Amino acid sequence: MTDLITLHPEARAQLFTDARTANTFTDEPVSDEQLRAIFELAKYPPTAANTQPLRVLYIRDGEPRERLLTHLNEGNRAKTASAPVVAVLAADTDFHEFIPRVFPIRAQMRDALAGDVQARERMARFNATLQIGYWLLAVRAAGLAAGPMGGFDADGLDKEFFADNGWRSVLVVNIGKPGPDAWFPRLPRLDYDDVVRHA
Amino acid sequence: MTDLITLHPEARAQLFTDARTANTFTDEPVSDEQLRAIFELAKYPPTAANTQPLRVLYIRDGEPRERLLTHLNEGNRAKTASAPVVAVLAADTDFHEFIPRVFPIRAQMRDALAGDVQARERMARFNATLQIGYWLLAVRAAGLAAGPMGGFDADGLDKEFFADNGWRSVLVVNIGKPGPDAWFPRLPRLDYDDVVRHA
Repeated sequence: MTDLITLHPEARAQLFTDARTANTFTDEPVSDEQLRAIFELAKYPPTAANTQPLRVLYIRDGEPRERLLTHLNEGNRAKTASAPVVAVLAADTDFHEFIPRVFPIRAQMRDALAGDVQARERMARFNATLQIGYWLLAVRAAGLAAGPMGGFDADGLDKEFFADNGWRSVLVVNIGKPGPDAWFPRLPRLDYDDVVRHA
Repeated sequence: MTDLITLHPEARAQLFTDARTANTFTDEPVSDEQLRAIFELAKYPPTAANTQPLRVLYIRDGEPRERLLTHLNEGNRAKTASAPVVAVLAADTDFHEFIPRVFPIRAQMRDALAGDVQARERMARFNATLQIGYWLLAVRAAGLAAGPMGGFDADGLDKEFFADNGWRSVLVVNIGKPGPDAWFPRLPRLDYDDVVRHA
């Protein structure tokens, strides 16, 4: 089966088959240049009408990290305190402001969406979540491990960090080099016949 | 910047920087083995509580393809008629039935979710959309081009194909080898400073 995948074998392992969600991290820092390189990959795969609503808040050590921790579920705090950098991934409900620049062939979409905040929120969350899929693999492409977490108080976190804009937090992700005992045993995946049908 | 990405350079191009959304396809068939190989990559990256709610209906030529086309926006019909295979990507709102198998450490989640269809729909759509991000890159990893489309009547499509289960259609994707004039010019991506903040 593997010869049907034309992707380089090392890449297959790095992004898909060998990569794991890390639960501990070393002290090795993650540089601003690495964070920029991740963006320069993750920005390319497609979104609806090229809207690109994913936004990223990176939090390093210090007082902002302390404020972040208060909004996480108890069980997520220790590992998040120890990660070299933490990303709050958000959907920008004001993404329509960029439409004339990113989708000039239908620039009028901006005005059509300006009065429909529910449609914007739905589009922003869907397309930002697609982009999070791309972005998590881009973190792995930079030789780093990601630890995504859904266990947090999204409203509290939005008030804390996004009171001045239309960003809505979707996922919190620890990033770094995996530390000691970083992995739980791999959980079972569904089988092809559980997931796929043919018509 | 490129040396910060440890991913093999060919893989970087194949999945991220050179890959494009195809709008035409050649007649070259896509085999069942290729579809299975795509699944065998896309199944690995993470979902919340390992729930894996993404489901895939593959539609080849013939009467099911005709039925699919009636639910697509006019502008998506010709290219979808010409693709060797079309995937309807769906979120399974009955994903909780698999929890004792895929997340045995909290098997009781199945019963907690059994009475809360709204929570299930929210979790199913979010995690299936994350998985669609992984899956689109896995299609590229098989040397194929994907053409994702959000322009379709989701309720009509669900009644047509998913009346007997809890699947809810999320995205329709044409798959094949790119044909003549397959690409529109690449649309602009947002800049790092539009997307990223540091706290």
